[in-house]
Amino acid sequence: MTTISMTLRIILDWGTTSFRALLVDGSGHVVDRVETAEGIQSVADGAFAPVLERAIAPWRKAHGRLPVYAAGMIGSRNGWVEMPYVPAPATAESLAAAVRIMPLSGGGTITFLPGLTDRAAMPYPDVMRGEETQLVGLGLGTDTTVVLPGTHSKWARIEKGAIARFQTFVTGEIFGTLSKHSFLAKAATKPDTPDWSAFLRGAAFIRDDTREAGLLSHLFAVRTGWLSGALKPTEMTDYLSGIVVGSEFREARALGWFKDGDTIAVVGDDDLVDVYGRVAMAYGLTVVMGPDDAAVRGCLAIAAIAEARDQAG
Amino acid sequence: MTTISMTLRIILDWGTTSFRALLVDGSGHVVDRVETAEGIQSVADGAFAPVLERAIAPWRKAHGRLPVYAAGMIGSRNGWVEMPYVPAPATAESLAAAVRIMPLSGGGTITFLPGLTDRAAMPYPDVMRGEETQLVGLGLGTDTTVVLPGTHSKWARIEKGAIARFQTFVTGEIFGTLSKHSFLAKAATKPDTPDWSAFLRGAAFIRDDTREAGLLSHLFAVRTGWLSGALKPTEMTDYLSGIVVGSEFREARALGWFKDGDTIAVVGDDDLVDVYGRVAMAYGLTVVMGPDDAAVRGCLAIAAIAEARDQAG
Repeated sequence: MTTISMTLRIILDWGTTSFRALLVDGSGHVVDRVETAEGIQSVADGAFAPVLERAIAPWRKAHGRLPVYAAGMIGSRNGWVEMPYVPAPATAESLAAAVRIMPLSGGGTITFLPGLTDRAAMPYPDVMRGEETQLVGLGLGTDTTVVLPGTHSKWARIEKGAIARFQTFVTGEIFGTLSKHSFLAKAATKPDTPDWSAFLRGAAFIRDDTREAGLLSHLFAVRTGWLSGALKPTEMTDYLSGIVVGSEFREARALGWFKDGDTIAVVGDDDLVDVYGRVAMAYGLTVVMGPDDAAVRGCLAIAAIAEARDQAG
Repeated sequence: MTTISMTLRIILDWGTTSFRALLVDGSGHVVDRVETAEGIQSVADGAFAPVLERAIAPWRKAHGRLPVYAAGMIGSRNGWVEMPYVPAPATAESLAAAVRIMPLSGGGTITFLPGLTDRAAMPYPDVMRGEETQLVGLGLGTDTTVVLPGTHSKWARIEKGAIARFQTFVTGEIFGTLSKHSFLAKAATKPDTPDWSAFLRGAAFIRDDTREAGLLSHLFAVRTGWLSGALKPTEMTDYLSGIVVGSEFREARALGWFKDGDTIAVVGDDDLVDVYGRVAMAYGLTVVMGPDDAAVRGCLAIAAIAEARDQAG
């Protein structure tokens, strides 16, 4: 039992709207999991510890004290503790050097992983929380460009064994607010399954527009397409998605994140990986899909370095 | 009485969320007005006539039958009748030629004005409803570029006595949905009066960014500015507004709507005229403010042409 317990760890994925804890063994296999709606925004007065202790109590009972690791938004200003941002270029070692270990009242410790900042970004330093751990999980051994889709999606460059630089695009937020709240897509009826044809039509329009147009004018095509009869209500949401994600790739290309024929990696754990992979191929890119457990792998890699250092110290 | 009645007209400004009727004399002076919350979206089963008849009953009692004119969204697919779009280039005469006159059960007629389309737009024909009437009210005698701020703001070119072409930017909708619903501006607290300094900082960042960056990456500055301590919560909303409106000007410049040192007209009847005027000046433009009753003037000009034609016929 002791041997097993030594290799078991708890990894938290505690976001704004949901709480998720994974019990993983030393090779990253998920032994058990618990998921609740107790996202950061639902926790009053900073009472994060009781939520965690309650969720992991059964695992502790079975396996004893287990080290807990947490990356991402739980380590942000609105979370449990505000972790610093390690400046890019950053390695797994520099991330591990900035972890913060806190005792838990129920025994054992929780280790918060830092975020990452790119101080060269304009006009203010760019930031990520959680994606740096996914990048470590993907592996920093091969130079490549990586896109991590999301509410605030990230383009990152891995070079010389480090996360060299990165940039945020607010793609998911624009799509989410417009598809839910806009007049633009008011007539839209969402189909049960994605209409990939409409999606790719939107992405291709953005890719092929030779004018120096931007998102503010491009978006109106959702409405004019509907008014002209070219877009059915069932096509509008995916056409909008194609325009918005296509615009992220158009902007990323203009900013030098890729050029025709490049290979890029797409890393994530949800349907967005498929969405982004399709647009990447439409832009002539070769796509490498990252492991969908990149966050767990990265967390374990950083944990291993931190634990080895603590044992050595 | 008869003489006065002959020159009085009712002009409707019936939008999605509000109903407004103006009683105007022959020179465009507003004699009386009525305003209710009975916007198009609040009217069930297309029962627009009773709403109108009830609102204008007192004026009819006092002045007899009065011709009613209506431009804008009341003549759209979700409105009373779906009016056609006259293709650009369009003059006051070509707009007047496309009006539709319908009898009202309470006596007299309602005349719907057409919209305008630019069939050369990509990827689908661009459209406006109401702004073409404001452009006629501004006057088509002098070649100029005109911006009409709004939920879907319009840039139009007046040339050779006609509205030559135009383009829509969804600026107001992006600002509205992001300021209300986004995570990006979640920490924002809206000040009682606009923070013009924060607004102009946002607009200047967009104007001066020499990279080929676009709105999706620029918008994240609202959050990174706050995280880095450079933006206070009270500054975030106006900084966001500066980024979004500034981006409209950046995109319009890239698309050839203006160049440094140009003179442009700004036409509208609300606070946005001030907002746009400030950004225009920040972009080195000379600004001519249009009359705030451009819609009334344009409606009367088109009405006069239509009425003269009907009397001649």
